[in-house]
Amino acid sequence: MLLSGGLDSSTCLYWAQREGWDCEAVSVLYGQRHARELDGARAIAKAARVPWRSVELELPWLKVSSLVSKSAKLPDLPLAKIGTGGIPSTYVPARNTVLLAVAASLADATGASAIVTGANALDFSGYPDCRPAFHRAFESVLREGTRSGKIRVLAPLLRLDKEGIVRLALELGVPLGLTWSCYKGGRRPCGRCDSCKLRAKGFAEAQAIDPAC
Amino acid sequence: MLLSGGLDSSTCLYWAQREGWDCEAVSVLYGQRHARELDGARAIAKAARVPWRSVELELPWLKVSSLVSKSAKLPDLPLAKIGTGGIPSTYVPARNTVLLAVAASLADATGASAIVTGANALDFSGYPDCRPAFHRAFESVLREGTRSGKIRVLAPLLRLDKEGIVRLALELGVPLGLTWSCYKGGRRPCGRCDSCKLRAKGFAEAQAIDPAC
Repeated sequence: MLLSGGLDSSTCLYWAQREGWDCEAVSVLYGQRHARELDGARAIAKAARVPWRSVELELPWLKVSSLVSKSAKLPDLPLAKIGTGGIPSTYVPARNTVLLAVAASLADATGASAIVTGANALDFSGYPDCRPAFHRAFESVLREGTRSGKIRVLAPLLRLDKEGIVRLALELGVPLGLTWSCYKGGRRPCGRCDSCKLRAKGFAEAQAIDPAC
Repeated sequence: MLLSGGLDSSTCLYWAQREGWDCEAVSVLYGQRHARELDGARAIAKAARVPWRSVELELPWLKVSSLVSKSAKLPDLPLAKIGTGGIPSTYVPARNTVLLAVAASLADATGASAIVTGANALDFSGYPDCRPAFHRAFESVLREGTRSGKIRVLAPLLRLDKEGIVRLALELGVPLGLTWSCYKGGRRPCGRCDSCKLRAKGFAEAQAIDPAC
């Protein structure tokens, strides 16, 4: 389980448990502008009673992304424009390839039969590495490049919109007050970044109150 | 350029320069039992006059590999048995997936059009992530999961045996005395690990003297 501590990956963790998987969660620090979501990941893993660890990768060139560089300005787009204008400045180069590779090495080391990712490709910022074709390609890497050759990629949210994700999270009893989705790292979510806006849209459409706000 | 500082990746660097590529080299520390080869990488990059850097990944579960765990015994097989008995204990889980992912993120961040890897699948230890099918699969990940979608994987040694690699290195003028291939980290190569034996075979068949021994 790749667990960032946000809405999506936290929902995936509870989904995987309901599906009967014996889970282990890993959070990856790659220089995100804040480590606020890490606290969320730790708390969610504790609430779900799964082993959790964080690992750190030194990838200094990721600072080209406004999600990593502290001096860059985060986009503040109208909701309707999110994901429509090409790849945004928050894109972290090949991030999901790196994250899935980390999960692949953990899975291949421990004999796990699947990797779970919270990627979704409907209400998203327009990152190429969140699309179904990317996950299929990565499964072929797992087939050819691991000891077992049988590690699957599970992306249960891939074709859900944010409303669907919020509804699933509520149905699964995910402790949403513990999750952190904002791209910034303040005390409260900023409400203006892509991630905040998409999350707010999801709660509004699901007619639910976000306990994290 | 993924540059470990061994015979293979060093040869690739000189090959890529001859092919006209403007190269940047990166060495990845993932907990190898020694950092001896890093000195080689730095020296080779300096000799080839290319920018070089090393990055560190914290992936503690890789200790299942005898190449990473300092307490594990390295295999000492007869040359003819190397690569024939299934995946050996030196296999580092999904290592090349992780290494290529790191290179992919660097390439996608800088706009590079190719990743170069020294993997080869003839005289090798039998790792699954050194085979042609693995590289093809990774190229599909690069196509689907990066900003440019056009990053290639170049593996010029993929179908060469060690004799061919040594001959190519000599032809290219690779400063072989600077390279380090041994799995151990002593002052001199051990002469007993897979890597030393395959390297010695290459030099013997190419009727050349290894300046690093």
